[in-house]
Amino acid sequence: MSTTLEQTLQAIKPLDLSSEPQISAELDNLTKPQGSLGQLEYLAKKYVLITGKRRIEKKMVIVMAGDHGVVAEGVSAFPQEVTPQMVLNFLSGGAGINVLASHAGAEVRVVDIGVAADFDEGDATAALIRKKIAPGTQNMAQGAAMTRDQAISALEVGIEVAQEAIFSGADVLATGDMGIGNTTPSSAITAVLTGTTIDQITGRGTGIDDAGLVRKIEVIQQAIRTNKPDAGDGLDVLSKIGGYEIGGLAGVILAAAAASKPVLIDGFISGAAALIAASLKPEIIDYMIAAHVSVESGHSVILNHLGLKPLLDLSLRLGEGTGAALGLTLLDASLKILTQMATFSDAHVSESH
Amino acid sequence: MSTTLEQTLQAIKPLDLSSEPQISAELDNLTKPQGSLGQLEYLAKKYVLITGKRRIEKKMVIVMAGDHGVVAEGVSAFPQEVTPQMVLNFLSGGAGINVLASHAGAEVRVVDIGVAADFDEGDATAALIRKKIAPGTQNMAQGAAMTRDQAISALEVGIEVAQEAIFSGADVLATGDMGIGNTTPSSAITAVLTGTTIDQITGRGTGIDDAGLVRKIEVIQQAIRTNKPDAGDGLDVLSKIGGYEIGGLAGVILAAAAASKPVLIDGFISGAAALIAASLKPEIIDYMIAAHVSVESGHSVILNHLGLKPLLDLSLRLGEGTGAALGLTLLDASLKILTQMATFSDAHVSESH
Repeated sequence: MSTTLEQTLQAIKPLDLSSEPQISAELDNLTKPQGSLGQLEYLAKKYVLITGKRRIEKKMVIVMAGDHGVVAEGVSAFPQEVTPQMVLNFLSGGAGINVLASHAGAEVRVVDIGVAADFDEGDATAALIRKKIAPGTQNMAQGAAMTRDQAISALEVGIEVAQEAIFSGADVLATGDMGIGNTTPSSAITAVLTGTTIDQITGRGTGIDDAGLVRKIEVIQQAIRTNKPDAGDGLDVLSKIGGYEIGGLAGVILAAAAASKPVLIDGFISGAAALIAASLKPEIIDYMIAAHVSVESGHSVILNHLGLKPLLDLSLRLGEGTGAALGLTLLDASLKILTQMATFSDAHVSESH
Repeated sequence: MSTTLEQTLQAIKPLDLSSEPQISAELDNLTKPQGSLGQLEYLAKKYVLITGKRRIEKKMVIVMAGDHGVVAEGVSAFPQEVTPQMVLNFLSGGAGINVLASHAGAEVRVVDIGVAADFDEGDATAALIRKKIAPGTQNMAQGAAMTRDQAISALEVGIEVAQEAIFSGADVLATGDMGIGNTTPSSAITAVLTGTTIDQITGRGTGIDDAGLVRKIEVIQQAIRTNKPDAGDGLDVLSKIGGYEIGGLAGVILAAAAASKPVLIDGFISGAAALIAASLKPEIIDYMIAAHVSVESGHSVILNHLGLKPLLDLSLRLGEGTGAALGLTLLDASLKILTQMATFSDAHVSESH
């Protein structure tokens, strides 16, 4: 295992809960029945426990883009050219994630970690973070999606990008993905790492029809049969049936926790990345906030497996970090509750019997 | 039936769905798989169908405060003096609703429709909307909570306050409540208007213990036995087992729909008001947006009865409009999606096969 990854894994500590009673007392002192703001109170507590801070200065959504050799098997409703087209859309500010990140007051960073197209130099791509490991994975139905070294590189790209984001002031990170075909490796990873049957955790992605869904399930079965990934070795799973953006996002999650920052997990693809990260370092789960549960059936399986309760259930299935961006607005709200509400004594309000 | 209420009920029309295909086409043209933003797309569509507009200039949360004679039966964990104390807290900006309304960019209007205390004149109460019908309801365990005329007055106070809010520019209203003891009449209303047994829809409110919960259920049973409210007559239900703030919020909901404005319904007490409004005019349901589902078991019964799917499920049970305020941030996000995202052709992104 290489040094950057090793150091990051070592830096992740179990969450220190020692200030929990004090934060709870603070929340209970505010003019509301104890616990009556439910998940908002949980969020505020989690943020303070992880960061030691009571405010968010900067929020960042990191969108990792990569392509997938397995699209040759006909598993997606959209052509592969959409991956680079959407990367350009992210860079010009027209995508769903741009709108919702702006709504949440968050910056978006876009990373080419494995797109199967070259991006021109120029103004339109000036903000692109260029970290391409390869122009898409190999077709996992025929063999390993990537080598073990490439899987490590994917994790380390995520770690580097997250470290830069944190160095530039991010207090909280949110994960986002782009990659035509990427629900297929995500389903494969989920099946292997949660021990669930493939048909239970395979959905329609961007919108394939019934025949396409049957085909997709067969392809995933074939990929697992061909590659025999070792469920006890997250790197083996990532390299054989994963994707570059999935590895990159797993790296982002690891680096956030290593730097004592919470990370908002978006949808199904980010969830697969969270599974990889948790298989490498189980303590990481304490630093995750599940922003939402998506329509993809595998996503709730992931959240149950990790023991995470999603903040939102809005039937989203776009990815890009859109659900995570909405989750950031709730995190913001939770800290405003903690810091802006009056206490019982300040407001001269009587407490309960 | 008096004129203001009659005119309002007559002004409420079934929602005109004729522009639905056009709004759907607009949403489908944006750079995302069709329908992939789930409830956000539903919200944007609903807002445009109701208002004909594509933006929100002003949002307003109307918090109605009233007291309940039934607290004499020991149904609440907090003393009645907390109602006026919290009204002052709302006016000075220290309550949960102030923080979350500000987070949502919404104004808060606070109405004394039936608080069992007098508020001094002065700077601290300058913004209070004074519409007191009586200093709290009568004890519904012993007889009717109010007269039929008082129930009509409560609805008309809500109508007037909502009309003033809309006149001053509100594009969307949100409901909020304050009233120690008000989960008790809300449970009673829910039992009668949804035909559900009382123990299924009675919860702990602000936090009563096991013995208190048993007592609360007995009190509600006694109130219904004593008053025999007519489930086919919303005014009878409101007057016999309701509350002033519940009637006021029902009026707010009716007036919003009459003026073609959507209304965000907060938690259990607002839900009871929504039931009253729907019993007076079933078409009103089209104008409601259920912001969240609360911890109170009766709330999900109400939402099922009205056929509304809540946006949020955050284990909230504070009331005041706090859940509705969070719902406003999602409504905002949905309209930004509709108006700020790039189309497939603008962004040169390929569509699905």
